[in-house]
Amino acid sequence: MILITNDDGIVAPGIQALIEVASKFDEILVVAPDSPQSGKGHAVTLNQPLKLRKVDLFGDINAYECTGTPVDCVKIAKNVILKDKKIDLCLSGINHGANSSVNIIYSGTMSAAMEASLEGVPSIGFSLLDFSFEADFEGAKMYAKKIIGQILNNPMDDCKLLNVNIPACPADAIRGIKVCRQAEGIWDEAFQEGTDPRGDKYYWLTGKFLCREDAGKEDHDVWALENKYVSVVPSGHDLTHYNGIQKFKYLENF
Amino acid sequence: MILITNDDGIVAPGIQALIEVASKFDEILVVAPDSPQSGKGHAVTLNQPLKLRKVDLFGDINAYECTGTPVDCVKIAKNVILKDKKIDLCLSGINHGANSSVNIIYSGTMSAAMEASLEGVPSIGFSLLDFSFEADFEGAKMYAKKIIGQILNNPMDDCKLLNVNIPACPADAIRGIKVCRQAEGIWDEAFQEGTDPRGDKYYWLTGKFLCREDAGKEDHDVWALENKYVSVVPSGHDLTHYNGIQKFKYLENF
Repeated sequence: MILITNDDGIVAPGIQALIEVASKFDEILVVAPDSPQSGKGHAVTLNQPLKLRKVDLFGDINAYECTGTPVDCVKIAKNVILKDKKIDLCLSGINHGANSSVNIIYSGTMSAAMEASLEGVPSIGFSLLDFSFEADFEGAKMYAKKIIGQILNNPMDDCKLLNVNIPACPADAIRGIKVCRQAEGIWDEAFQEGTDPRGDKYYWLTGKFLCREDAGKEDHDVWALENKYVSVVPSGHDLTHYNGIQKFKYLENF
Repeated sequence: MILITNDDGIVAPGIQALIEVASKFDEILVVAPDSPQSGKGHAVTLNQPLKLRKVDLFGDINAYECTGTPVDCVKIAKNVILKDKKIDLCLSGINHGANSSVNIIYSGTMSAAMEASLEGVPSIGFSLLDFSFEADFEGAKMYAKKIIGQILNNPMDDCKLLNVNIPACPADAIRGIKVCRQAEGIWDEAFQEGTDPRGDKYYWLTGKFLCREDAGKEDHDVWALENKYVSVVPSGHDLTHYNGIQKFKYLENF
C-alpha cells in the first residue's frame, strides 16, 4: 500500500504524474488537499474539524480530497481511512517548485512526507524546479520510478525520509543522482504593499531564495540541482544543534 | 531592540508575561497573530495578503497584530515595520503548552523563533507545560529573565536558536536548567468523528504525545521536564540525516 499526497492540491498535474509512476508498483491510496497548500509547512488543523470527500479523478485508484493541510492528509489517511492497515511507502508531490535547501521547513510537500516518516513509514517527497502547471514532468517521472523501485526493495533503516528535487530540464539532460546534504540558504523577502477595495493597506509576501554556501562546495543539494543532477537529501526530524549543547551548558549555572 | 511574537495570539497571557520580563532589558516591538495559531508550524501565507494593525495593549510598548501566521509576523516585523533596523533578540511565547521533543516541528511558537534565527537573529522560544489561559507564569518568568539576561550578554555564535520549556509547577519547585537534546517522540492520534448541522461527517484531530526514549536516558528534554527542570534545547534548521548520506549513496548508481 502506497499513500500519495501533495501540497499543490489534488488537481495539480504533479500528483497525477506521481500516481502514474507509483501505480506500477503497488496499490495506491491518494489523500490530498482540496486546495493549494504551498508554504503550509508542518501545520496541523487543531481549531476546526476536517472533511473528507471521495473523488473520481484517477480511474480505479482510491482517492480522497481533504479540507486540511498536507500533514492533516497523512494523519487522516492513517487514522481514519486506513485504520490499522500498514502503509509501505508514503510519497508526496510531485511538487511544482523547488524544496531544496531550507525550503524543506516551509514545504507542505516535505512536511507531509516527514509526518509519515515520524510514524516509521518510509517516505519520499518529490519536487520539480518548475512552478508552472504546464511543467514537463518526464524527467521527474523517470527518476521517481528509479528511486521508488530502489526504496521498495531496500530497507531504509533508521533514516525514513528522502527529499528529492529534480532539475527543470529535459529528461535526457539530467546527469544522474547526487545524494547530498541540505544547502544553507535563506529567503530574501520583500512585501508588495497595496490598498484593498475598502481602502485598507495590505502586504503580500514575495522574495527570492539566496543560497548561502561558499563557491566550490559540491556536497549540497543546490549545487547538485544547478549542475543538472537530481538531489536526494536523506532527512530527519531532530532539530537539536548538537554542538550547541556543550556551548550552552553554562546556562545550567543560573 | 527585542522582537516578541507568539502563536497563541496577541491577547494570550503568555505573551504578556514575556513582554513584562523582556521590557526590563531593552526596547520592545511586539508583532503577534490576531488569532490563535497553535500547530501552524512553519506555515507562511503565500496566496493572500496580510494586514497589520497597531494595538494599544501593553502601555507604551509598540505593538501590532497581524492576520498571518507566527512566521509571517517575524517576516513582516523585519521587512515592513523595522526595515533595516537591527533586531538583537527575537523571543517567542510564552507558549501555553509544551513544545518539547518533536512538538518543535508543529509549533508556531518555535517556528517563529526559528524564522528569526535563519536570518541570524539570536532567538528563543519559551513554552510552559500548561495549556490553560489561567496558567501560573511565575516560574516561566523567573527562568525567562535568567536566560534572556545571559543570552544578551554572551554571543550565541553559530547556534542561534534555543527551545526552552518550563515545567508546570510553582516557581520554587523548579530544580534548575538542563541543556539537552530533543527527545524522540510522536503524537498518537485519533480523530473525533461527528456530524455537522448540515448532516456532513467531520473529523476533529485529537491525540496524546508519546515519548519514545528508553527509560534511564537523562540527556533529553522530556526527561528534564518530568524531573522538574527547565529544558533548553539548542536547535537549528538543518534536517539532513547525515548518517543517511552514505547509506543512500547507492542511489547514484541508477
